[in-house]
Amino acid sequence: MSEAVQTNEAAQTLDGWYCLHDFRRMDWPSWKLLSSDEREKAISEFLGFLEKWDVVKHNREGDYALYSIVGQKADFMMMLLRPTMQELNEIENAFNKTTFADYTIPTYSYVSVVELSNYMPQKDVDPETDPYIQSRLKPELPQWDHVCFYPMDKRRENDSNWYMLSMEERRKLMYSHGMIGRKYSGKVKQIISGSVGFDNWEWGVTLFAHDVLQFKKIIYEMRFDEASARYAEFGEFFVGNILKKENLAKFLAV
Amino acid sequence: MSEAVQTNEAAQTLDGWYCLHDFRRMDWPSWKLLSSDEREKAISEFLGFLEKWDVVKHNREGDYALYSIVGQKADFMMMLLRPTMQELNEIENAFNKTTFADYTIPTYSYVSVVELSNYMPQKDVDPETDPYIQSRLKPELPQWDHVCFYPMDKRRENDSNWYMLSMEERRKLMYSHGMIGRKYSGKVKQIISGSVGFDNWEWGVTLFAHDVLQFKKIIYEMRFDEASARYAEFGEFFVGNILKKENLAKFLAV
Amino acid sequence: MSEAVQTNEAAQTLDGWYCLHDFRRMDWPSWKLLSSDEREKAISEFLGFLEKWDVVKHNREGDYALYSIVGQKADFMMMLLRPTMQELNEIENAFNKTTFADYTIPTYSYVSVVELSNYMPQKDVDPETDPYIQSRLKPELPQWDHVCFYPMDKRRENDSNWYMLSMEERRKLMYSHGMIGRKYSGKVKQIISGSVGFDNWEWGVTLFAHDVLQFKKIIYEMRFDEASARYAEFGEFFVGNILKKENLAKFLAV
Amino acid sequence: MSEAVQTNEAAQTLDGWYCLHDFRRMDWPSWKLLSSDEREKAISEFLGFLEKWDVVKHNREGDYALYSIVGQKADFMMMLLRPTMQELNEIENAFNKTTFADYTIPTYSYVSVVELSNYMPQKDVDPETDPYIQSRLKPELPQWDHVCFYPMDKRRENDSNWYMLSMEERRKLMYSHGMIGRKYSGKVKQIISGSVGFDNWEWGVTLFAHDVLQFKKIIYEMRFDEASARYAEFGEFFVGNILKKENLAKFLAV
Amino acid sequence: MSEAVQTNEAAQTLDGWYCLHDFRRMDWPSWKLLSSDEREKAISEFLGFLEKWDVVKHNREGDYALYSIVGQKADFMMMLLRPTMQELNEIENAFNKTTFADYTIPTYSYVSVVELSNYMPQKDVDPETDPYIQSRLKPELPQWDHVCFYPMDKRRENDSNWYMLSMEERRKLMYSHGMIGRKYSGKVKQIISGSVGFDNWEWGVTLFAHDVLQFKKIIYEMRFDEASARYAEFGEFFVGNILKKENLAKFLAV
Repeated sequence: MSEAVQTNEAAQTLDGWYCLHDFRRMDWPSWKLLSSDEREKAISEFLGFLEKWDVVKHNREGDYALYSIVGQKADFMMMLLRPTMQELNEIENAFNKTTFADYTIPTYSYVSVVELSNYMPQKDVDPETDPYIQSRLKPELPQWDHVCFYPMDKRRENDSNWYMLSMEERRKLMYSHGMIGRKYSGKVKQIISGSVGFDNWEWGVTLFAHDVLQFKKIIYEMRFDEASARYAEFGEFFVGNILKKENLAKFLAV
Repeated sequence: MSEAVQTNEAAQTLDGWYCLHDFRRMDWPSWKLLSSDEREKAISEFLGFLEKWDVVKHNREGDYALYSIVGQKADFMMMLLRPTMQELNEIENAFNKTTFADYTIPTYSYVSVVELSNYMPQKDVDPETDPYIQSRLKPELPQWDHVCFYPMDKRRENDSNWYMLSMEERRKLMYSHGMIGRKYSGKVKQIISGSVGFDNWEWGVTLFAHDVLQFKKIIYEMRFDEASARYAEFGEFFVGNILKKENLAKFLAV
Repeated sequence: MSEAVQTNEAAQTLDGWYCLHDFRRMDWPSWKLLSSDEREKAISEFLGFLEKWDVVKHNREGDYALYSIVGQKADFMMMLLRPTMQELNEIENAFNKTTFADYTIPTYSYVSVVELSNYMPQKDVDPETDPYIQSRLKPELPQWDHVCFYPMDKRRENDSNWYMLSMEERRKLMYSHGMIGRKYSGKVKQIISGSVGFDNWEWGVTLFAHDVLQFKKIIYEMRFDEASARYAEFGEFFVGNILKKENLAKFLAV
Repeated sequence: MSEAVQTNEAAQTLDGWYCLHDFRRMDWPSWKLLSSDEREKAISEFLGFLEKWDVVKHNREGDYALYSIVGQKADFMMMLLRPTMQELNEIENAFNKTTFADYTIPTYSYVSVVELSNYMPQKDVDPETDPYIQSRLKPELPQWDHVCFYPMDKRRENDSNWYMLSMEERRKLMYSHGMIGRKYSGKVKQIISGSVGFDNWEWGVTLFAHDVLQFKKIIYEMRFDEASARYAEFGEFFVGNILKKENLAKFLAV
Repeated sequence: MSEAVQTNEAAQTLDGWYCLHDFRRMDWPSWKLLSSDEREKAISEFLGFLEKWDVVKHNREGDYALYSIVGQKADFMMMLLRPTMQELNEIENAFNKTTFADYTIPTYSYVSVVELSNYMPQKDVDPETDPYIQSRLKPELPQWDHVCFYPMDKRRENDSNWYMLSMEERRKLMYSHGMIGRKYSGKVKQIISGSVGFDNWEWGVTLFAHDVLQFKKIIYEMRFDEASARYAEFGEFFVGNILKKENLAKFLAV
C-alpha cells in the first residue's frame, strides 16, 4: 500500500464510548406552579431514568454522571456515555419527552467520543482487548465531588499551526503536556473526548476532582506549557458539584 | 474575447440541484399538550409531505433526507434538494404552514447548490448529459445511517490567502485533499454544495456514513492536510442518525 | 484652500435615495389563530401600503421590492427606497403599527444610502442633473426574479489596509473589480449602498438576477480578485425569490 | 514625586456629565392591546418625565434627547446626561417602573462620561471654571434633526498598538483627525464620552446633524485618516431622527 | 524531585474564598402584576436571605455585596463570597427558588476564587496564618459607593504571548502594573479572582470606589502600561451603585 493511502499517524486515535454533555437550567417559576404531587411524579420519572442508567452502568454498557453547575450557565449537567451514537440519541430523546424535561431549559450540549491519542507511547497490545486501554475508552465515571468541562481546538494560525507540525514535534509537545497532567495524578481525573465532525470544537475535556481548586491549578499550570500557551484555543468553561441520586429530590425541592 | 472578460478558471463550477438544510428542535411541552388525535393528524400531514417528496425523488426531480440530530442544536434535520430555488422555497413555506411545524423551533438552516469544482481533472464530456456528472450534480441521497453537516470557508489571511494562490497551487492542494477522501470510499459519501451568495459560508459539506466514527476519522485526517490545516475555516458541526419515515411516529410519540 | 481642508478624494461619493432592507419571519402559529376574515383584513391593510408605495414609485419619489427569503433567516424582505431618512423611518413605523406586522418577527435590517463611488471615471457632467447618474442614485428596482443581499467592509489589517492605500491603488483595484462585474451585465444588476455611520458595515450590496446561480458565479469570481480576496470582509448573505403583490395572498394563505 | 507615580499624560482627561444611551423597541402588539385611555395615561406619564427632565435641563443640571431610530435595532433612543452616576441610575430605574416602559423592549444601552482628551492644545485656564471647557463637559444637546451613535476602541495589535505609541505620536494622529472634524464644523456636532471601566468599549461617539448624510461623509473621510484607518475598532452604529416631545403622541399613536 | 514535576512558579497562586457575581434584570411588568402584599412578602424573603448572609459575614465565613447596575445589562448584581464552591452553589440554588427570583431575569454570572499571584514579593510568612494575606484571600467587601466588574485574559498571540514570557519578564510587567494601582490606594480597592477552569476568562476584576470616575482613571491609565496594552484582553464591563439593605424596598417599589 502506498504512503498516500495510509492514515496520517497522528490521526490514528483509539475511540471508545460516545459522549453527550447536556447542560440545562431549571425553569423554577414553572416548576413551582406544579402541585407537589406533580413535582413528585416528575422527579420519580427522572429517578426511574437514573435507575435504568445505573443498570446500564452496572452492565458496563455505558455510564452517566449528574452535576449541579455553578453560575447562570446551567443548573445541572448530565454526562452520558454509550457504545453507539444511536443509543445516545435515544436517551436524549426519551429524556426530552419526560415531564421533568418540560421544566428544564437547554443551555448547552456537547457531542463527542472518548478518545486516546496516538501521541503517548503505546504498549504492544491489541487495543480491542487490552484491559487498561479498554477501561480508558469505556471509562467508569469517577463520581468525584467536582466536574469541569470545556471544549478546545488546536490552533491553525500562520506561525502557530498545530496541524502543520511534524508528528515528532507534536509528540514532544504532548509529552511535556502529559508530564504536567501526571503531577496531578490522584487529584484530577481527565477524560478527553474527540469531537471533530460531531460538534463545534475538536475536543471536549472533562475533569473530575475532590478539591475543586485542582481544576484551576492544573489548567493554569498547563497554560504556561507550549502545547497550550501557543497551540490551544478554549471554548466555554463549566464547573459543578456532584448531584447524587439521593440528593435529587432536595435539589428540586421548592 | 480578451482574457480580462473570461471567467476565472477556478470559478467555473458545475452546479446542480439547490439544497436546503433545515434544523429544528421539537417544542415537546406544547406537542404533549395536543390530544393524541391532534398529534396523529399532524404526523399524518407531515407524512403526506414525505410521500409527495418520495414521488419527486422517484421521478428524479429532487431528493430529501430526514435525520435526528444529537445534542441540543436540533432534534431533527431535513435536507431538501430541488432543481430550482423557487421549488426549495415553496417546500419550505408549505412546511412552515403545517400544524406539525407549529410544534418545531427553527434552530439553523443552510442554503446552497450542489457543486463540482474545477480542480479535479474532467473528462472530455458534455457535463449537461454525462451520466456520471449528472448523477453527482443531482445526487440521490444515500440514506445511510448517519449524517454530518458543516459549512466552511477558504481563508483569506495575509500569509494564507486561498484566493490569491494560483490555479496550479490550488489544484495541487485539492488533489492531495481528494486523495484522503478517496481512502474513505465506500465508508463516507460526501456532497459539496456551494453557497457563495446564498448563505454565510462559501460551502456546505454533507457527509453520510454507516459508521459514525468515519466522520471524525476523515475530517481529522484532512485537518493535517495543508488545504484544511492552513486554508480552511469551519462553522458549526451537526451530527445525526437517520430517521426513516416508518420511524417518524415513534420518534414523535409522547 | 489648503489641502488639509479638502475632502479626501475617495471619500467624495455621490449619494441618492436612502434605503432600508427589512427582513422578517412570519409568526405562522399566531397567524393561523386568526380567523380568515382577520387575516384577509390584515393582508388588505398591507396591500394598501403596497399600493401607496406603488404611487410613490410611479411618481419617482422612491421604490420598493418584496422578496420571499430562502431558509430560516427570514420569510420575506422588504427593500424600501426614499429621498430622506425621515420618510424611510415613517414607512417603517407605519408598517410596524399594522395588524400584519404583529404577525411578523423582525430578524435583520440594514440602513444605507444608494451610492456611486469616485473610483470609476466620471463624465464631466453635473451629477445633480445628469440623467444617467440620477437614474443610478434614484434607481428603479428591477423586480427581477431573485435578490441577494449582503453587507461588507474593506479590511483595515496590518498588511492589507484598504484605507491606507493610495487613491491610485484603490482605483486600480476597483477598476479590475468592475471589469468582472461588467461581464455579468444583463445577468446581474447591482445596487451599492453606503452605510458608514448608518449601520454596522460600510456597504450593503443588493444584487438582482433572473437566474439565481448568477449570484454565486459573480461573487465567487470576484472573490479571486484582489479587491475581494485581500480587502473584503463579508457579513451575512440572504437570498430570495420575488414576491409579487398579486402572489401575496397565496404566500400568506394558511 | 517620581515619574513612576505621575499619571500618564494622555490618561489625564477632563470629565463632565455622566451619560446613558438607552435604545428600545416598542412592543407594538401589546401596546395596541391597551385601551386608548390606558395608552394616553402611559404617554402622559412619560411626558411627565420629559417635563421633569426639561426642568433639569433648564437648570443646567443635565440634559436629554429623544430620537426615533431607523431599522430594527430600536424604535427610539433616550440620551440622558447627569452630573452623577447615581442620578443616571435613578432616572433609568424610575423610567423602567413606568407603564410606558412595560411596552418597550430594551435592545442596547451605553454608559459613559462626557470627556475632553488631553491631545488638543489647552488654554492655560482652570478647567473647573473656564466657561468653554465647562460647556463642552456639560453640553447642551443640540436637538438637531439627526443622531448617530457608535462605540469604539483604539487597537492594541502587534504592529498597530495605540497604547504603545508615544504621547507625541498620538497627539499628531489626533491632531490630523481633529482637522477633518473641523471641516464639518457647523454641519456635525460631536460629543465624545469615555467608557473605560463603564461599558464594553473605550469611547462612545454621539454625532448630531441637520443633514443625515454628513454622518456618512465625516466618518467615511476619517476612515482614511491613520488614527481611524489603522487604530480604530468600531462597534454597532445607530442612526435616528429627532423625536420632539410634541410629536411623541403621534409617534405612539396606533 | 526533578524540575519537570515542580509547579511552574507563576502558577503558584494563593487562593481564598470562592466568588459568584450574579447579574439580573428585574422583570418589572410581572413584578407590578403582583399585589403589594405579595411584593412585600417577596422582599421580606429576600431580606431574610440578606440577614442570613450578614450573620455569615459577621462570623467571617463569607461576605456579600449588592449593587444596582447602570444600563440595560442588569438591574442589580449580587457578589457572593464563600469558603467552598458547594456553599456558593447552595446559596445560588436557594436564591433561585425564592419568589423574588421568579421576578428576575439572569443576564450574566461569573464564577471565580479570590487569588493572590506570585508576582509580588512575598514576605517570609505562612500564608495559611499570616493575617494580612488571610485578610486579602478572605476579603471583607468594602461596601463603597460604586462597583466595577470585568473579566480578562492574558494574550496568547504570536508576538505577544504572556504565557511564553519568562517569570522574570512577567514579574517586571506586573510590578510596573502594580505601581499604577498603588497610586490609586485609598481611592480604588481591587479584588482579583482567578477563574481558569471555572469560567470563560482567566480572571475576574472587581473594583470598588467612592468616586466612580476613579474606575475610568485607573483602568485607562493602566491601558498604557505594557501589561495591559500588549497582553490584556477584556470582556464585558459592568458599573453600579451600592444598593444597601435599607434601600432595597425603595429600589423595588413600584
